[in-house]
Amino acid sequence: MDRARLSLNQYTVKPWSLREAIDGCVRHGIPAMAVWRDKLAEHGAAAAARDFRTAGLRVSSLCRGGFFPAPSAAERQVRIEDNLRAIDEAASIGAPVLVLVPGPAEGASLADARAMIAAGIEAILPHAQAAGVRLAIEPLHPMMIAERSVITSLGEANDLCVRFGSPHVGVVADVYHIFWDYRVEAEIARAGTSIAGFHLSDWRTPSGDLTSDRAMLGDGCIDIAGLASAVYAAGFNGDAEIEVLNARLWAGDQDATLRTAVERYLAIPSPG
Amino acid sequence: MDRARLSLNQYTVKPWSLREAIDGCVRHGIPAMAVWRDKLAEHGAAAAARDFRTAGLRVSSLCRGGFFPAPSAAERQVRIEDNLRAIDEAASIGAPVLVLVPGPAEGASLADARAMIAAGIEAILPHAQAAGVRLAIEPLHPMMIAERSVITSLGEANDLCVRFGSPHVGVVADVYHIFWDYRVEAEIARAGTSIAGFHLSDWRTPSGDLTSDRAMLGDGCIDIAGLASAVYAAGFNGDAEIEVLNARLWAGDQDATLRTAVERYLAIPSPG
Repeated sequence: MDRARLSLNQYTVKPWSLREAIDGCVRHGIPAMAVWRDKLAEHGAAAAARDFRTAGLRVSSLCRGGFFPAPSAAERQVRIEDNLRAIDEAASIGAPVLVLVPGPAEGASLADARAMIAAGIEAILPHAQAAGVRLAIEPLHPMMIAERSVITSLGEANDLCVRFGSPHVGVVADVYHIFWDYRVEAEIARAGTSIAGFHLSDWRTPSGDLTSDRAMLGDGCIDIAGLASAVYAAGFNGDAEIEVLNARLWAGDQDATLRTAVERYLAIPSPG
Repeated sequence: MDRARLSLNQYTVKPWSLREAIDGCVRHGIPAMAVWRDKLAEHGAAAAARDFRTAGLRVSSLCRGGFFPAPSAAERQVRIEDNLRAIDEAASIGAPVLVLVPGPAEGASLADARAMIAAGIEAILPHAQAAGVRLAIEPLHPMMIAERSVITSLGEANDLCVRFGSPHVGVVADVYHIFWDYRVEAEIARAGTSIAGFHLSDWRTPSGDLTSDRAMLGDGCIDIAGLASAVYAAGFNGDAEIEVLNARLWAGDQDATLRTAVERYLAIPSPG
């Protein structure tokens, strides 16, 4: 695949600060980065914007907003306000996309939680539009339903996305979260240019930790090349983000992780 | 829910032999049982048939056939022959249903594995028909895709089922495997009377073991009553099988497990 369209999700090298991740991207010829809010807060948004410019790096997205369901209206309002701040942060570092992890039900029914998510996105959409930031609904693997997201398939994210009919709402196609779905190619095609993010890692039989055991590209069973073909054929023209969340890799040499990640990415046949 | 339509999947009390499970069902007023092949083999099918009759227990299903994908045609034939034997075993104990766990890809692509599963069912269907045993395709939770099933949603199982257009092929609605799906109610309705099994357990945030950490009914977040309403409204009239696979419960008092399971089952509001 095309190095010019490669981005590093900085949690792939989670032990590194934002500064170290920027330097790592430069060292490994990675032209873009997906930024996490905790790392951004440590560094400061204004300094980050300057450092990205100086380094010649683009920002592909900010992780993450979302987590809309909460037991009370007051708590849901707190979540909405946090999302408004996240939109501002995204705009301040030139991130075209804010990734939304929808959130678990927090004791509500799935139907109610799903309605809270729709309401949350509706509440923040005007601000996203004004800021020029695209909201990207990320469906998560169904095993994360009780912890991170009641939106569990690309089909569901697509159905939610079309309700807004806005160029400022899109979906994320993360291969780890969606590959298992027999309808994944059809839903990628249906998403079309509403695909606002394309995330890469791989699936090994999970062994304990549901959030920090993603495999390096090529070490699992996901047909990444096939899914990339589908995503680019659908009209996506953004960056592919390498997002390998793996506690063992975090404990190792982060430069080695980046070297392998870039090699594996470049070895994937270019779509189309 | 109705005690007359309650069945115990014997792996809920896995430490027990078939004999002990039969006695447990009688003691706790459970009128039917889902049998596992390993337990049946220990006991002998003829003796089991006799003991079920003597105890006045019905057999709701035999677990399990399936696991059709394999790297070579010869290995796939071995799997098919094992399924033919499973059909015979089901018939010999009066089990109306053989549960099919489809199997993982075993190195094949998901598309090829799915084709192997369709071919496997096609190969055993005549024998199932002759034996009067219904084959029940069980979609498993997507987290089990690399270990147990590339068929990961009820929609996918329904699509496969309708290809056969046979009363001897149905699907299993196991709440643990399908509750996360935003289309679950629609797919239950679509399945209609092709629902050949209804399995009950609950979902807690998984904590390590993907196959032995199912929660007791009522201890998780699944809307069992809602799904039961949908399943019975779709025309299902078989037994609801309690299938709580939980290593901590296996290490405890099996009678206590059964007592709780029956209590929780009876406390679920009767559908419709």
